Amino acid sequence: MTTVGFIGLGNMGAHMARNLMKNGHKLVVYDINTTVVAAFKADGAQVAGCPAEVAAAAKDIITMLPSSPHVRKAYGGDDGLLKEMQPGTLCIDSSTIDQTASIEVAGWCQEKQSKYVDAPVSGGVTGAQNATLTFMLGSGKCQKTFDRAASLIKLMGKNMVNCGEVGAGQAAKICNNMLLAIEMAGVAETMNLGIKMGLDPKVLAGIINTSSGRCWSSDTYNPVPGVIEGIPPSNGYQGGFGSALMAKDLSLAQNASTTTQSPTPLGSLAHQIYRLLAQDPRYSTKDFGIVYQFLKNQNN
Amino acid sequence: MTTVGFIGLGNMGAHMARNLMKNGHKLVVYDINTTVVAAFKADGAQVAGCPAEVAAAAKDIITMLPSSPHVRKAYGGDDGLLKEMQPGTLCIDSSTIDQTASIEVAGWCQEKQSKYVDAPVSGGVTGAQNATLTFMLGSGKCQKTFDRAASLIKLMGKNMVNCGEVGAGQAAKICNNMLLAIEMAGVAETMNLGIKMGLDPKVLAGIINTSSGRCWSSDTYNPVPGVIEGIPPSNGYQGGFGSALMAKDLSLAQNASTTTQSPTPLGSLAHQIYRLLAQDPRYSTKDFGIVYQFLKNQNN
Amino acid sequence: MTTVGFIGLGNMGAHMARNLMKNGHKLVVYDINTTVVAAFKADGAQVAGCPAEVAAAAKDIITMLPSSPHVRKAYGGDDGLLKEMQPGTLCIDSSTIDQTASIEVAGWCQEKQSKYVDAPVSGGVTGAQNATLTFMLGSGKCQKTFDRAASLIKLMGKNMVNCGEVGAGQAAKICNNMLLAIEMAGVAETMNLGIKMGLDPKVLAGIINTSSGRCWSSDTYNPVPGVIEGIPPSNGYQGGFGSALMAKDLSLAQNASTTTQSPTPLGSLAHQIYRLLAQDPRYSTKDFGIVYQFLKNQNN
Amino acid sequence: MTTVGFIGLGNMGAHMARNLMKNGHKLVVYDINTTVVAAFKADGAQVAGCPAEVAAAAKDIITMLPSSPHVRKAYGGDDGLLKEMQPGTLCIDSSTIDQTASIEVAGWCQEKQSKYVDAPVSGGVTGAQNATLTFMLGSGKCQKTFDRAASLIKLMGKNMVNCGEVGAGQAAKICNNMLLAIEMAGVAETMNLGIKMGLDPKVLAGIINTSSGRCWSSDTYNPVPGVIEGIPPSNGYQGGFGSALMAKDLSLAQNASTTTQSPTPLGSLAHQIYRLLAQDPRYSTKDFGIVYQFLKNQNN
Repeated sequence: MTTVGFIGLGNMGAHMARNLMKNGHKLVVYDINTTVVAAFKADGAQVAGCPAEVAAAAKDIITMLPSSPHVRKAYGGDDGLLKEMQPGTLCIDSSTIDQTASIEVAGWCQEKQSKYVDAPVSGGVTGAQNATLTFMLGSGKCQKTFDRAASLIKLMGKNMVNCGEVGAGQAAKICNNMLLAIEMAGVAETMNLGIKMGLDPKVLAGIINTSSGRCWSSDTYNPVPGVIEGIPPSNGYQGGFGSALMAKDLSLAQNASTTTQSPTPLGSLAHQIYRLLAQDPRYSTKDFGIVYQFLKNQNN
Repeated sequence: MTTVGFIGLGNMGAHMARNLMKNGHKLVVYDINTTVVAAFKADGAQVAGCPAEVAAAAKDIITMLPSSPHVRKAYGGDDGLLKEMQPGTLCIDSSTIDQTASIEVAGWCQEKQSKYVDAPVSGGVTGAQNATLTFMLGSGKCQKTFDRAASLIKLMGKNMVNCGEVGAGQAAKICNNMLLAIEMAGVAETMNLGIKMGLDPKVLAGIINTSSGRCWSSDTYNPVPGVIEGIPPSNGYQGGFGSALMAKDLSLAQNASTTTQSPTPLGSLAHQIYRLLAQDPRYSTKDFGIVYQFLKNQNN
Repeated sequence: MTTVGFIGLGNMGAHMARNLMKNGHKLVVYDINTTVVAAFKADGAQVAGCPAEVAAAAKDIITMLPSSPHVRKAYGGDDGLLKEMQPGTLCIDSSTIDQTASIEVAGWCQEKQSKYVDAPVSGGVTGAQNATLTFMLGSGKCQKTFDRAASLIKLMGKNMVNCGEVGAGQAAKICNNMLLAIEMAGVAETMNLGIKMGLDPKVLAGIINTSSGRCWSSDTYNPVPGVIEGIPPSNGYQGGFGSALMAKDLSLAQNASTTTQSPTPLGSLAHQIYRLLAQDPRYSTKDFGIVYQFLKNQNN
Repeated sequence: MTTVGFIGLGNMGAHMARNLMKNGHKLVVYDINTTVVAAFKADGAQVAGCPAEVAAAAKDIITMLPSSPHVRKAYGGDDGLLKEMQPGTLCIDSSTIDQTASIEVAGWCQEKQSKYVDAPVSGGVTGAQNATLTFMLGSGKCQKTFDRAASLIKLMGKNMVNCGEVGAGQAAKICNNMLLAIEMAGVAETMNLGIKMGLDPKVLAGIINTSSGRCWSSDTYNPVPGVIEGIPPSNGYQGGFGSALMAKDLSLAQNASTTTQSPTPLGSLAHQIYRLLAQDPRYSTKDFGIVYQFLKNQNN
């Protein structure tokens, strides 16, 4: 079992790192949160004082960080991974960040005779805990790199999709989530309209779900409480995927739209709607299906 | 076999009326288009000089008209159906119109001791021809009315959904189509963005279709040519559901949003986008998946 | 001094009617609100039992009603104005309604050898009270009609604009108010953005107001409290033009956009935003500049 | 007369640099375009081989570059200004870039005991040529810095606005231009709607310009040909401010909205509209008032 470097022990990363340990990997970890680091130390992980030390100690490295600047700094900062990166290192970056950042960092790693694979995930904290995440990989056409990444990823997730060149994982995740936001907001306003026109919510959902309007947000994750049991919208929008997190993913989609000059009118409007939710304490941390309540206005 | 009155022998109505005749019903027809009327006469249909004459000759009447004012006039005009409507008549209105118009006309029929059922359809001209339409019925809670309507509808379509009170059929159709337009435009901009970010169209569609972004417009009717064979987007956007028709349905959705004071930000934006398409001869009569080409801009 | 018929004694209409009385006109009034009618009776107005009675008693008639259906009914209803309209009557309709309704009603009046002029107003309740309203007239090219209308209008307002054919008054008002809503929301989001970027509100307003971004909503009615003193935004958004009223005018603009098939993407989005405000008790009755608080979110 | 360093001799920069030379300043210039550099050399300017050489030769430096990465590289690149920056240097950056980039670069200069002032301009190529530009300065509260910058700026422009701290110039420019785009698109759709409703363009503009809808885009730069003579919309949209340039400024506004988490629904929609124009060769290089033709659709 190889020693694996792990940088970024947040809500997602800590679970992912523990799943590697459970499967017998020795870990070298780094995070600015000293409490979390201490807990990993107590459980037998080696602790690094900076990313560079992680690179010196491991040739398989996973990074799980909140944003592009964090990733750029963890790799290219004064005491970043690149400073001590050993030739032949494989870096798996599971952060959801700008595609341009992924591609740039991949270039830096290549200069160190190493590989960088973007591998953002979906599945949330529960998926991270239960090792049921889906990983979207941008590993290029190199089967060897893919297999090497897969040997670690399979311990942390259930599905792995090979999306294409470096950055393709980011592209796939951003695209899916932008469309998801459009559909969720679309279902929310449609259900609200139909109910106000006198339709029963379950009847309306049933019609849509057997017609051309059907989508995951209508048939699996309908945002109207009571239409589908056992999902966050039927449980006070507790758990699930937070509105503020959706707003963040939508901002990445808009960055990519600007970079590639792609018109995304609905994605852009969905972004603005989720930004309104993200700044409102009634909605910010609740599941993103709560856009239904925002549109409906609970005062009426 | 009863005599059936039929008003509105357009692209859809003519096929529907013929399917009734094929099944042995005698028809009394009315349309302002004298050529079509002559053809029906040649085939044995009785021809009425005005809607009132239809009502005098038949107690089962189907109307299939392009807009709310046409329906209001066919029923309530100077020589409209109401003028000669016999007690116990059943009117099946398959027009896609404002819910408020359906409810108003239903009231007029009730004053004549008759029933009005709104029953808009989906499935297009092909569905009308092949009797595979889906009918969305607003027939109230009256099983007898539903059964009586069903005995005719089953000759013209394949599916029948009981949506609720009078007007519920319009509500269901308008809601589904608004959501459909949002999703189609959303898929179009997402696919365009992903392709510009370097993803292969089929790979991207595959990822979306197994993820939370999946919808009918991505997995069954993907607007990118070549992603799915045998649908209009892979055939020059010929046939299918025209952009201008979608713009019309979206205008009904916006009317309903205003009447019920329901916020529909994405539906409203989709409406504006399809209006831009509807006024452009390059897009107007093409399948509504052509919004992909509009966003992509064929010059690039 | 002629006897003037007045139908619609609401917040606006009552003030307008009183200004006619103050100037010596005898009034025949009709309204469904019996309390208001009683007050006018006490002050010497003649009271009609229905619009038809108004038409029988006066050949100069002013209508000030809340929506298109009200106007259609007041003129064309069972006991409507048309039933007793005398040849040579002049109807001045100051209601803000759909242009199509104005044109239709004008046609009805013409059949009675009478004239209908649309004359919607701006200036609010204060303007109605102080006779400082602006009237936008659609009086056709008939100078005689314009002059006759003007002789009454000048007692109720300060400005009169001849906009063109019948319906042009509605068009002008709807267009101005749609643009106003776009600008007000635009100024609100721009001011909020600039302030969050560190600019002083007054400095930012100053720059905009001497640059290409200047508009009435930035230089005369800036929605940020304290930037301009003496206007509703600096007084808790009390008074002024209510958000729900703006939502109503925007719905007329959207109706007109649909009728004329004109793309109005920003007008449509502004409509949706004001609809969100109109359904929220925190914003609904407050001055429409409160869109600034909606975007800013007072919780942050 | 001091020696002034000038980096970025594009459409705008070349005119600005020449205005400094005309007023007697000696120049040290750098640009990657060797043709332009040769022309300046022929006119007596000193030519630097890289930005660092400019910094070694001049303590007053002006940069006029197309985007944030260009500015970051010119200052912080391997042979960037910082490498040879002399203590006490004043850098005036007239590029229109992200505020975050301005603030970052200002910090770098401060470490070299130098000053960085953001000073984006408005007024276009004509303004650059005629030295009638408006400069929006973010010079902090330091009067000395402002005065030193002003002594050079007054040779290149007519107006100078002190917007506040470093980055405030960018904020002011971005805010004004976002609002301008909203208003221009708003005027375009309003004029189009009004004309389709039967109003004369000049009459409609006249009404708006004396009402609450008035703005610079309606009363000074109306996008409907013929409403105002002598501006690009009345001259085939030649000259003026290009749609693609507006799209770029709107992307900066959206970046800032994301960074500051400010909802900008109309700014975001205007951005998408101008992006559609920017990718269409019929509109891209034409004056941004051409959004009127885009909405109107020249085929109708």
